[in-house]
Amino acid sequence: MKIIQCVPNFSEGRRQAVIDQIVQAIVEVEGITLLDVKPDRDHNRVVVTFVGDPETVAEAAFRGAAQASKLIDMETHRGEHPRMGATDVVPFVPLVGATMEDCQAIALKVGERIGRELAIPVYLYERSARTPARRNLADIRRGEYEGIKAEIETNPTRTPDFGPSRLHSTAGATAVGARPPLVAFNVNLDSSDVKIAKAIAKAVRESSGGLPAVKGLGMMLEATNQAQISMNMVDFNVTGLHTVFEAIKLEAAKHNVQVANSEVIGLLPAQVLIDTATHYLALKDFSPAQVLELKLSARHAG
Amino acid sequence: MKIIQCVPNFSEGRRQAVIDQIVQAIVEVEGITLLDVKPDRDHNRVVVTFVGDPETVAEAAFRGAAQASKLIDMETHRGEHPRMGATDVVPFVPLVGATMEDCQAIALKVGERIGRELAIPVYLYERSARTPARRNLADIRRGEYEGIKAEIETNPTRTPDFGPSRLHSTAGATAVGARPPLVAFNVNLDSSDVKIAKAIAKAVRESSGGLPAVKGLGMMLEATNQAQISMNMVDFNVTGLHTVFEAIKLEAAKHNVQVANSEVIGLLPAQVLIDTATHYLALKDFSPAQVLELKLSARHAG
Repeated sequence: MKIIQCVPNFSEGRRQAVIDQIVQAIVEVEGITLLDVKPDRDHNRVVVTFVGDPETVAEAAFRGAAQASKLIDMETHRGEHPRMGATDVVPFVPLVGATMEDCQAIALKVGERIGRELAIPVYLYERSARTPARRNLADIRRGEYEGIKAEIETNPTRTPDFGPSRLHSTAGATAVGARPPLVAFNVNLDSSDVKIAKAIAKAVRESSGGLPAVKGLGMMLEATNQAQISMNMVDFNVTGLHTVFEAIKLEAAKHNVQVANSEVIGLLPAQVLIDTATHYLALKDFSPAQVLELKLSARHAG
Repeated sequence: MKIIQCVPNFSEGRRQAVIDQIVQAIVEVEGITLLDVKPDRDHNRVVVTFVGDPETVAEAAFRGAAQASKLIDMETHRGEHPRMGATDVVPFVPLVGATMEDCQAIALKVGERIGRELAIPVYLYERSARTPARRNLADIRRGEYEGIKAEIETNPTRTPDFGPSRLHSTAGATAVGARPPLVAFNVNLDSSDVKIAKAIAKAVRESSGGLPAVKGLGMMLEATNQAQISMNMVDFNVTGLHTVFEAIKLEAAKHNVQVANSEVIGLLPAQVLIDTATHYLALKDFSPAQVLELKLSARHAG
C-alpha cells in the first residue's frame, strides 16, 4: 500500500471560517485522513497536512485548491511569509511504501488540472521541476504575488508549466511538486531586532553559502515582538535540526543575542527526534526499532 | 484493548542456545508479540521485551521463568550486573489502554504462581511492593544471589512474598512487580578507571542523594576497556535522560574525564525522544501528535 502525504499551504491564517471551508473540501474526499491544520496569524497562512493513497490525495489536493481560489483574494492578502497564490504551494511527499516517482506522477496530474480547470498558472518545483531554475520555490516565488503579476505576461522565465501565462485575478499562481519530507522549523530570538534575524538567516541558509538543505528567512513576530529565523529543513538527512540550531546559537552570540526557543510547525518524522537525541546524548547504535511505538505500529501493519 | 508490556531479565547473556530456549517458551504463547531480545555479554544477562493482553502476558512470563529455572544455574553464574535469580526480575508495564492497577493484578498472579509451581521465592517490588523496604529492587537484591542465600532462611526481612523461604537450588529468587516504563541508559566514559564511574554513579543516583528516579552503578566494560555508568531511569517523567546525561558530563569534568558516548538498552517510549529534543532545541508547544508516525498509528488504531 502506497501512502502519500500532501502538505498544501494556503494564504489564510486568520479567518477561521475560510480555513474550515478549505479543509472541508479536502476531507470530503473519501479515504483522506487529515493529520494537521496549522494556521499562523503572523504569516497569514495555513499549513494543512493529509494522507491517503495516490488517487485520493490527488483529488483532495485539487479540491482544496479549487475552494481556496474562491475564498482568498491575493489582491488584498498581507502576511509575513512570502506568497504568490491563494493555494501557494502543493507538495506531495512519499510515505510508507511510496516513491518519489509516485509523487512526481501525482504532481504532474494535479498541476495540469489546476492550470486547465481553474485557470491558475502552475509552476512545477523541487523534484518535479523541469529546469534547475525551478527547483527552488523561493526562485519561482521571487517578487511574490505582486512581482509575478508585473512580469508573468512579458518575461518568458515566468511562463508557467501549466495554465495561462497570466495570474488568476484573485488566486494568483501555485507551485506544485514532489519533495522529501520537510520540517518547518523556526528559531526565535531574545530580541526584537529583525535585522539580526535576517543576518542569521543569511548566514545559515544554503542559498547564501550556509548549510545545505536549509532555507531560511528573518522575520518579525508581531504577536510576541520577537525576531525569528523561519526555516524549511528540506532534507533533514543532509542537515539536521540540531545542526542548524547550534549554528544559529553561535551566530546569535556574535550579535550578543540569545536564542529564546524554537518551534516545529506541523508534523515531523520520528527520525528527526532520533537524530536529535543521537546528537545531543552521543547515542551509539540506536535504531528506530528501539522506539516502542514504532515497533508496535510495525507489528500492527504486518 | 489493554496492552501490557513485560520486560523480564534473565541471568544469561552469553550462551545463545539458552537465550533462544527461554525466548521460545515465551513466544509459544499465542498472542504474544516479541519486541526485543537484548543480551549483554559483560552483564551476562538478557533483557526480553514482549507485549500482549493481560492474560497472555501473564502466561508467557510464567513460562519464561519456568524455562530459565531449568537452564540457568546461579551457583556458577558470574556477570557485571547484580543478580539474584535465573529469572532475576519480571516487571509488568502498562501500555496502550492499560493502567498500573492492571499490572499490579498480573504481578500478584504471576508471582504467586512462580512461588507455588516452581518453588522459587518471589519478592513483590516497585508498585507491587507490600512494604516501602521492597519498593526498590536494589534493596531486595542486596548481597545478590550469594548474600540472599546466606540470609533468607534466618533473616525475617528476607522472607519472600510468595514461595518457600529458601533459595531455589539453581534458580535463586525472583522479583515480580508493576512499574512505569523504564529506560535502561548507559553512559560510557573516555576512561578505563572504574572508580570514576562508581563515583559518578553515586553522585547522580537517587539512593545516595542524587537525582530522583535514577538508579545507577559504575562498572567496567571489559570489551571496550571503558568505565560505564549503567542506569535505570525508572520514571523519565521525573528525571529525563538529558538531565542525567548533563549531570554526568559535569561530574566527569570534575574528574578530568570526558563522556565518550551513551546507549539505550532495549526499547524506549517515543516521549523520551520528544523530551530530549524539547530540552536541547528549546522547543515550545511541541505535541506528540506532531510526530508523523504516532499520528498515523493513532489513525490505524482508531
